[in-house]
Amino acid sequence: MTDVSGLSIAILGGTGDQGKGLARRFALAGHEVLIGSRSAERAQEAAASIGPNVRGAANADVAAEAGIVIVAVPYEGHRALLESLRGELAGKIVVDCVNPLGFDKQGAYALPVEEGSAAQQAAAVLPDSRVVAAFHHVSAVVLLDPAVEKVDLDVLVLGDDREATDLVQALADVIPGVRGVYGGRLRNAHQIEALTANLISVNRRYKAHAGIRITDV
Amino acid sequence: MTDVSGLSIAILGGTGDQGKGLARRFALAGHEVLIGSRSAERAQEAAASIGPNVRGAANADVAAEAGIVIVAVPYEGHRALLESLRGELAGKIVVDCVNPLGFDKQGAYALPVEEGSAAQQAAAVLPDSRVVAAFHHVSAVVLLDPAVEKVDLDVLVLGDDREATDLVQALADVIPGVRGVYGGRLRNAHQIEALTANLISVNRRYKAHAGIRITDV
Repeated sequence: MTDVSGLSIAILGGTGDQGKGLARRFALAGHEVLIGSRSAERAQEAAASIGPNVRGAANADVAAEAGIVIVAVPYEGHRALLESLRGELAGKIVVDCVNPLGFDKQGAYALPVEEGSAAQQAAAVLPDSRVVAAFHHVSAVVLLDPAVEKVDLDVLVLGDDREATDLVQALADVIPGVRGVYGGRLRNAHQIEALTANLISVNRRYKAHAGIRITDV
Repeated sequence: MTDVSGLSIAILGGTGDQGKGLARRFALAGHEVLIGSRSAERAQEAAASIGPNVRGAANADVAAEAGIVIVAVPYEGHRALLESLRGELAGKIVVDCVNPLGFDKQGAYALPVEEGSAAQQAAAVLPDSRVVAAFHHVSAVVLLDPAVEKVDLDVLVLGDDREATDLVQALADVIPGVRGVYGGRLRNAHQIEALTANLISVNRRYKAHAGIRITDV
């Protein structure tokens, strides 16, 4: 079992709901969490709203400082942000949890991505980083809800670097209730990102905050 | 709750493992099942190998006779078969469970489909049918195993026709352990088909027959 204790975690785009939710859960598990944002001030405000173990700074600063970096920005700004941080992210494990989705009257749908998926786009933009895809299906509402002690879902972890996917699985495991499950190579990330559109449909139909569990594992 | 008792079920390509597995479980639940194949003789042999309540005939004959039709052919023959059965399938609910996958040394991956997904291809080819996507992730090994009494997975059911998706959800529910869950519109079928590639990766890594469950529903 990979040991992730003491690992500091940066969350780029950490002022959004998904980023704040992950920050909260990792901080509760005892990790130092660095919220990143374009604005250091907004990052500090978000960090203060979450609680102990969380600090805020500009994206480039948290990317340079942390042991592992989670990318939780909106898809629109994804490529440009990563291009601007190529140096800071070199040699690091970069965990992409971006879901390229569009929305219309009929709900959510998957956007086409030239590289195949947001995760593959990250890998193309960051040739010197170790890109892993994970945390796509976590519900920000659930992560931020103090009444939810255990988060009932598996986090599918995808990547081509076994040591990196093992570490990210172990990181998922620190959130009570969550289990990190290996979910395949990066070339199969598109459907995991796009599945979020289906979960949004499920949420609408059943008034739920749906996640997935993998059976027989 | 939609009543599916007495519904006869045709399975096109029912001589393959997935088709036979579904046939076995529906027959056990008391449904009349009609195995379809290009060769009536091979269909009859497959039917006899499964047991009571199962008959075999040519694809066109079972498509014309049954109350609902499941498409479980390999993706290579998918479009041509459906084009040839447009008349027989008119007005019927057609349940597509085809996964367009390729395989190489690194495992399974999703094939591009011009229409977006096999299910959308079926809908394009069969404008007079009610196309639903479902049963993509069932393990043939598990369905065919007499030692497995309860099949531990949810069947995601996708479609744009509420009455049709409700009926297919009810049909999934007749298999002990299985639950039919609405999974979105047909335009979001691609990722559900492609997710089978990830489950194949999970099966390799964990020596499992993985399925999925939807949480909070």
